[in-house]
Amino acid sequence: MSSMFDEAEQDPKLSVEEFADLEEPLRVKLLNEQYRHLKLKDRALVIVVAGLDGAGKGATINLLNEWLDPRHVRTLAFSKPSKEEKAYPAQRRLWLGLPPKGSVGIMFGASYMPLLKEMTKKKVAPDHIESMIREIRKFEDTLIANEVQIIKLWFHLSRDAQRLRTEKLLANASTAWQVGKNDHKVFKHFDRTRQAGQRVIESTDAAHSPWIIIPSADENMRIVRTAQAVLNALTQRTLKVPPSHDPAATPQHARARPRLDQLDFTVNVSKEVYEQELLQWQNRLANAVRDKNFNKNSLVLVFEGQDAAGKGGAIRRVTHALDARQYRTVSISAPRPFEMDRPYLWRFWRNVPKRGRITIFDRSWYGRVLVERVEGYAKRSAWQRAYQEINEFEQKLFDHGTLVLKFWLAVTPEEQLLRFKSREHSPFKHFKITSEDWRNRRQWPAYAKAAEEMFAKTDTREAPWHVLSANDKRHARLEIIKQITLAVENKG
Amino acid sequence: MSSMFDEAEQDPKLSVEEFADLEEPLRVKLLNEQYRHLKLKDRALVIVVAGLDGAGKGATINLLNEWLDPRHVRTLAFSKPSKEEKAYPAQRRLWLGLPPKGSVGIMFGASYMPLLKEMTKKKVAPDHIESMIREIRKFEDTLIANEVQIIKLWFHLSRDAQRLRTEKLLANASTAWQVGKNDHKVFKHFDRTRQAGQRVIESTDAAHSPWIIIPSADENMRIVRTAQAVLNALTQRTLKVPPSHDPAATPQHARARPRLDQLDFTVNVSKEVYEQELLQWQNRLANAVRDKNFNKNSLVLVFEGQDAAGKGGAIRRVTHALDARQYRTVSISAPRPFEMDRPYLWRFWRNVPKRGRITIFDRSWYGRVLVERVEGYAKRSAWQRAYQEINEFEQKLFDHGTLVLKFWLAVTPEEQLLRFKSREHSPFKHFKITSEDWRNRRQWPAYAKAAEEMFAKTDTREAPWHVLSANDKRHARLEIIKQITLAVENKG
Repeated sequence: MSSMFDEAEQDPKLSVEEFADLEEPLRVKLLNEQYRHLKLKDRALVIVVAGLDGAGKGATINLLNEWLDPRHVRTLAFSKPSKEEKAYPAQRRLWLGLPPKGSVGIMFGASYMPLLKEMTKKKVAPDHIESMIREIRKFEDTLIANEVQIIKLWFHLSRDAQRLRTEKLLANASTAWQVGKNDHKVFKHFDRTRQAGQRVIESTDAAHSPWIIIPSADENMRIVRTAQAVLNALTQRTLKVPPSHDPAATPQHARARPRLDQLDFTVNVSKEVYEQELLQWQNRLANAVRDKNFNKNSLVLVFEGQDAAGKGGAIRRVTHALDARQYRTVSISAPRPFEMDRPYLWRFWRNVPKRGRITIFDRSWYGRVLVERVEGYAKRSAWQRAYQEINEFEQKLFDHGTLVLKFWLAVTPEEQLLRFKSREHSPFKHFKITSEDWRNRRQWPAYAKAAEEMFAKTDTREAPWHVLSANDKRHARLEIIKQITLAVENKG
Repeated sequence: MSSMFDEAEQDPKLSVEEFADLEEPLRVKLLNEQYRHLKLKDRALVIVVAGLDGAGKGATINLLNEWLDPRHVRTLAFSKPSKEEKAYPAQRRLWLGLPPKGSVGIMFGASYMPLLKEMTKKKVAPDHIESMIREIRKFEDTLIANEVQIIKLWFHLSRDAQRLRTEKLLANASTAWQVGKNDHKVFKHFDRTRQAGQRVIESTDAAHSPWIIIPSADENMRIVRTAQAVLNALTQRTLKVPPSHDPAATPQHARARPRLDQLDFTVNVSKEVYEQELLQWQNRLANAVRDKNFNKNSLVLVFEGQDAAGKGGAIRRVTHALDARQYRTVSISAPRPFEMDRPYLWRFWRNVPKRGRITIFDRSWYGRVLVERVEGYAKRSAWQRAYQEINEFEQKLFDHGTLVLKFWLAVTPEEQLLRFKSREHSPFKHFKITSEDWRNRRQWPAYAKAAEEMFAKTDTREAPWHVLSANDKRHARLEIIKQITLAVENKG
């Protein structure tokens, strides 16, 4: 029966002479293409390394670091997550490990070795495997759409070659350590592993993130085929892109859409009521986040809204109830160069809280579909794609037990004007008002349209939008702390 | 009896009217000075927040974030170190938390709250306290010499005021949570805490990192005095510097100084012996770092030496024996802008390994006293100071159980010339040879002098230099892997 491993399992070899002829031109081309890649800086290249044990994966990583200029190569090995890593959503460490544009990242194992392990089990859990595959495919689609090129190398050899190699290494006391403790097991279960490998490859192969099978029994062959695969990837002039998302797609669990024009902007709270209730809610929130149950969860708060809607003041009313060791406020403005070199969501992944912690975002990843859309900083395809990427990101947080609450503080144009003028006249608030604010104000309808579309596409059960009138600051602040408190209490 | 707390314990107040008169000018000046600080970018400002419980430290941090432009303020609270933090040397988290130049960092507690706690104990350990104080002073000296300004705020109030505030908060269910569970204890032990506070301040007060006592019984007074203290710090035109280090100082545990001119450059190893021995040492090293005992330790390897001395090749012979998940190779070249904005050692602190891990530095912090000295990139005072800073850094690693091994690969000028020429003629090695290399070569005597002085001043028992002939690559590689293996085995 023919299989994708046929060639590799014939254990093809390259003679010393054949290798000598190939080596120099390959190394020269590889280096030249790497420098072109570095100079162009139009994408990052991720090389996933996976395959059978004993096929020389580690040696290949050393080789790539020797043949490429290692200053622009970053190697990451993903072993069993540490306790600290488990306190964050699982995908975080993959995100944080992404190389910047112009660089090459080698990811050893990545999500594939866990998938392979799962598929090799005697009793497989089809649903779990399905969901792992779906996650991997989504993740890779997102990377490629964000200018991260992916190739996946599967190192393979025949059962006999694997046995021979293992026996040879074991026979010599100086090389026995190269045989991992799992190698015996894999060797015993060659058929099962091989079959699982085939399924891993079939289920995650795509034109835009292809698997390449590297015959690995012979070192020379393995080296040349690896180098050729990397060279082909670097030489590729344009990136293949995954089938585009449906921009009209609404979230799976979309709720009744909040509407700016349905808000009651006249609602207000007296000073007396405010001061009393604020203290009570702060009290409840303080207790809720100090509860032991909260250590199993984490909390992400997103504050968006028009300029001068009072985000900062509302945030301070919340943080007043929190322990300084527990929370962090992250102010989001234009991305910095090293952030621009990574997929859009990278800088937000860097700031997700671990269990028991809180991150407050003063503006957020929604900038993509608000300011970047309105001002044209992001391409149409990029911000349209962002709705789905954002929903997936928030879903990941939700799956990890993170509460995600999003607040939109809405003011009327009249109220904003009053606040702008008052800021301009305040000697210690005029730094808060810039020409940009006035420019944004002139774009009011465009921002409103963008906000409405954002609500429609990203208001999910997992991460709901709370759209509220902030014409009266007291009302807004009370409403916010109340929603947060109730959500934390219900979760706990 | 008069004490430093006399004024604060009189619980001075500001009336609403007095406060109203002061607030606006203070806020305006603060903001203006913050922007000047941001624009000048000549230093970072660290504000340490400490003092009695119940004195409003948390509220003050909120206030600073409100009065300053919070986009350039970073607040860090240091609580009991997590398990992950404990896997690294203790000082790492302070280093990583340093704000960049132009910014303000608020450090809640920092090293001071642990010191206070230690001093408040019934049975104090004078040696331990002495060493804590010494560490703090050294750390602050290093920061200030590296353009980090420090002020330390001690929030204080009288015993009666503390009791009143606590009782008042406890009386109201909505505010009771603001009383920490330790507040009662501190309140019971007011005298002891007060006395310990006095000793903390006396032992760590310095003209260049002064303590400022903030009377905290009255909120208005606390706010105004805090704002004034921060304003004074921002307004200060030049940084007070700590008494300079003695540049002639040799390390405490200096060993016999290695000398480049005493090396035997004729030593060499045959290919047969090399291949056999290399495999044996790789085997021993592989076992040593896979031993359970290694998980209690960590390993830092530093590779320095003339250009083309073979650092990369030597490193690969070592990493061949390591598990890719266990080690990381860090290539050090010129610092990037965000690294320039922090003290020199910051970027190396970011890369120290945690327990059970290995970091290999291909070039290192020694660049300060080599290339930066020779090429004039660092001021004379900066590189002269660096010897002591480096010894302290390595001492910190040593104290944590990190093995620090430093290798200098020495080649003769004749051998280097041969390698440069061979690199130029190799189609895949010519990227390794640049005009900079030829320029460095012309500075040979200056580099040799810098290296000799470096050996004399940084060859310590805690982090020894291994200076070896690399004219024969095989000899150098064997020697390196042997030294590493023996050191790991002895430590284990």
